[in-house]
Amino acid sequence: MSGRLFLVPNTLDFGVTGTGLPPDLQEVLPLGVIRIAAQLGFWVAENAKTTRAFLKRVDAVVPLAQPLQSVQIVELPRLQKGAQPTGAIASESMLTPAMQGHDIGLISEAGLPAVADPGAGLVAAAHALGIQVVSLSGPSSLMLALAASGLNGQSFAFVGYLPVDATDRSTRIRELEALSRRGAQTQMMIETPYRNAPLLGALLATLSGETQLSVSCGLTLEQGWTRSATVAAWRAASTALPKDVPAVFCFLAH
Amino acid sequence: MSGRLFLVPNTLDFGVTGTGLPPDLQEVLPLGVIRIAAQLGFWVAENAKTTRAFLKRVDAVVPLAQPLQSVQIVELPRLQKGAQPTGAIASESMLTPAMQGHDIGLISEAGLPAVADPGAGLVAAAHALGIQVVSLSGPSSLMLALAASGLNGQSFAFVGYLPVDATDRSTRIRELEALSRRGAQTQMMIETPYRNAPLLGALLATLSGETQLSVSCGLTLEQGWTRSATVAAWRAASTALPKDVPAVFCFLAH
Repeated sequence: MSGRLFLVPNTLDFGVTGTGLPPDLQEVLPLGVIRIAAQLGFWVAENAKTTRAFLKRVDAVVPLAQPLQSVQIVELPRLQKGAQPTGAIASESMLTPAMQGHDIGLISEAGLPAVADPGAGLVAAAHALGIQVVSLSGPSSLMLALAASGLNGQSFAFVGYLPVDATDRSTRIRELEALSRRGAQTQMMIETPYRNAPLLGALLATLSGETQLSVSCGLTLEQGWTRSATVAAWRAASTALPKDVPAVFCFLAH
Repeated sequence: MSGRLFLVPNTLDFGVTGTGLPPDLQEVLPLGVIRIAAQLGFWVAENAKTTRAFLKRVDAVVPLAQPLQSVQIVELPRLQKGAQPTGAIASESMLTPAMQGHDIGLISEAGLPAVADPGAGLVAAAHALGIQVVSLSGPSSLMLALAASGLNGQSFAFVGYLPVDATDRSTRIRELEALSRRGAQTQMMIETPYRNAPLLGALLATLSGETQLSVSCGLTLEQGWTRSATVAAWRAASTALPKDVPAVFCFLAH
């Protein structure tokens, strides 16, 4: 009988420099999830180093079933940012332990694997091989931001990253605003943190003044916040965005 | 100084009849979230009765700061299913305790409030009043299903409920399939559990055989599962869907 593929959530503090220690794992992850993570001896990870750091935090709550050195961690192939994952690329060999009866964990550097993050190809390959896939509950910056936005949570789209080129980006923002208006659909996007401020600038320069814009920054962290207001209000009192904290941008046009 | 509005996640076992007790809260909710919930004396809820049941489960892990009878719970006005929430409808009076300095919790019957659930109007009103909004980490059936689907998690849309009328539903499915194909965008939808089987039937009858379809049923529950395969494979070996367990449907057209 084959093992299962567990999709293990990570915390949202990855890459956040700043004061103090990372928050206790139990602030954002259920004990049930930490218990499962402590049992797993085989991992597929976005990044092996951050996975070892995660397992040390797990061990502080629930002792690992085996020494960290003997836990096997293999890294996912790097995807182009925003690229669509392809089906079964080289995933089968990563799933060999499951075919041999061992449970495997899939983990990202932050949040849920395979959501705005690599891993979907591995999950697809697991389904193709008849391996049971089990999602575990944890923080999703997208859903936390959507809930905190007060925008439409009955219809929404996540579009990933916008183009970096200024003209292309404005064109894309206008296109998304038209889509949002037509379907009353909240549009959500992310950016690498050092481009947070330019993206906000482009949104304020391009969107209609009546469009509702929400920015969530550093959610689940001590210093996290959400601001939600019309674009006109954002223009009148601009907010500085940190360069090293992840942010989620949501807007809804009327 | 005004209190904060905490968006408190609930478990995903609401309305699921079946064997055994509901799972321990710590299987799906972080201890940090349970601790905050135990402190809150003012709640706005989708349903007061299920909120009291939730608080009893909280109390079993972290004793409530005050007796349950003295916790104030007010219900959100009922929204039409799938309707877009309006801005500040009668929400201000619900936020009075926050204006008086008390923290408030917002909670749904299942999952994250204001995501595929009522509450966005209250959150919008909180922002308008300058009340700090804090999202707490918990299970989101949509994101758990998306991660487990192996479909594109870099671009996806949640469209809520499809029309009940068979002709309208087919038209809408075709429209969503075209959208999915054009933008390589995973389309996600839900249905009231007793209509799970008819929705699956309509998807199998309408979508192209090569379209990838994923159904997640009862996620986070003991009996939960995800099946992800082409529509052609689903047609060849159909799966019975339970009438009393929530399901999430995702598809991606090529």
